[in-house]
Amino acid sequence: MANYVYIATSLDGFIATPDGGIEWLEDAPNPSGGDFGFSEFISRVDALLMGRNTFEKVLSFDQWPYSIPVYVLSNTLKSVPDELKERVEIITGNLSVVLSKLSSKNHKDLYIDGGKLIRSFLQEDLIDELIITRFPKLLGKGIPLFEDLNESLEFKHVETEVIEDYLVKSRYRRTKRCAAAGQLRF
Amino acid sequence: MANYVYIATSLDGFIATPDGGIEWLEDAPNPSGGDFGFSEFISRVDALLMGRNTFEKVLSFDQWPYSIPVYVLSNTLKSVPDELKERVEIITGNLSVVLSKLSSKNHKDLYIDGGKLIRSFLQEDLIDELIITRFPKLLGKGIPLFEDLNESLEFKHVETEVIEDYLVKSRYRRTKRCAAAGQLRF
Repeated sequence: MANYVYIATSLDGFIATPDGGIEWLEDAPNPSGGDFGFSEFISRVDALLMGRNTFEKVLSFDQWPYSIPVYVLSNTLKSVPDELKERVEIITGNLSVVLSKLSSKNHKDLYIDGGKLIRSFLQEDLIDELIITRFPKLLGKGIPLFEDLNESLEFKHVETEVIEDYLVKSRYRRTKRCAAAGQLRF
Repeated sequence: MANYVYIATSLDGFIATPDGGIEWLEDAPNPSGGDFGFSEFISRVDALLMGRNTFEKVLSFDQWPYSIPVYVLSNTLKSVPDELKERVEIITGNLSVVLSKLSSKNHKDLYIDGGKLIRSFLQEDLIDELIITRFPKLLGKGIPLFEDLNESLEFKHVETEVIEDYLVKSRYRRTKRCAAAGQLRF
C-alpha cells in the first residue's frame, strides 16, 4: 500500500487562498489544453481519500472529475448527494483505522487530497510519494500545504518536469531507514 | 538596478532550523565537488547586502567566502572585525535609503541574503529575481523563507535545473505590469 500526494502550490507553499479559493490555479495559462499529467497520475492510484472541505469544493465543480472510487473522511458528514452514491463513500475513524478499512477493500495505492488531510498524513509519516507542481507566484497568504512537523522527513528526488514553460512539477519518494538492516528503503 | 535572491530551502520552505542551523545544507551529498552554480551567480552581481544575523553566521565560517563587497544592514552593529574592514561595510536606514546609498556607490546588481532581509524586500516588492534551490526534505520546523504578504506577486519561470539528481534549482523573474503601457516587463 502506498499513499500519494499530487498537488499544486504557490512558490510560498500555499494550496489555496485564505477562503479556500483556487481561481489562481484554474485561471493559469494552458495553451496545449493538456491536464499537466493528472490522468497519468490517476492511472497509478486506485482510490482517492479526501477531507470534507475538499469534497465540498469538488461538489461545486460543473461535473464530478474522478473516475476512481472516492472516500470522504468525515465524522460529521452524514450522506452524499444521490447521484454520487455509487462513486463516493463516507469513511470515519483515525488514520490507521481508515487505512485498514481501505486495505480491506483491496485498495493499494491511495491518492490523498486536501490540505488538512495531507498535513495529518505527514504528521504520522504516512505519505510515500509527494508530487508537487509549483506555480510561479507568491500568493502572499492562504492555506499552506505544510505545517510544522515533530521530526524531519527525508525524501528522494525522482524526477522534475517543467510544464508549459512555467510550472515546475517534482516527484519525491519518502526514504526510510529500515531499523533492522540499517539500509535505505525507497 | 536589480535585486537577486539566491537561496536554498527545504521542501516545506525553511532556510534554517529554528536556531538558525544550516548543517542540513552543509551535510548534503556533493559527489562532484561543485558549488551548485554559486560562483556563476556571484559573477552576475556586484555587491551583497545581508542582515546582521546572516553576517554573524558567516563570521563563524572558517574563511570569508565572498569576493564581492558586502554590506551589512544593521542599526545596532557598530564595527566589523579588523581583517574584514576592506570587505565589509555596515549600512543603516530603511530599504529605499539603503538602495539609494548602494546605487550612489555604482552597485547595480545586488545579492540580497538573510531570511529577514529577503522577507522585508519581498514585502516592498523589491526583488527582481528569485533563485531557489529545493532540498528533498521536510525540515518540519525552522526559519521560513517567506512570510505573509499584503499582495500576491507574479513571477516568470526562467529555468529549472536538477543538480546531482536531488536538488531542484529554479530561477524566477518578477513580472510587473507597467502602469503606462499596460504591458508586461520582465
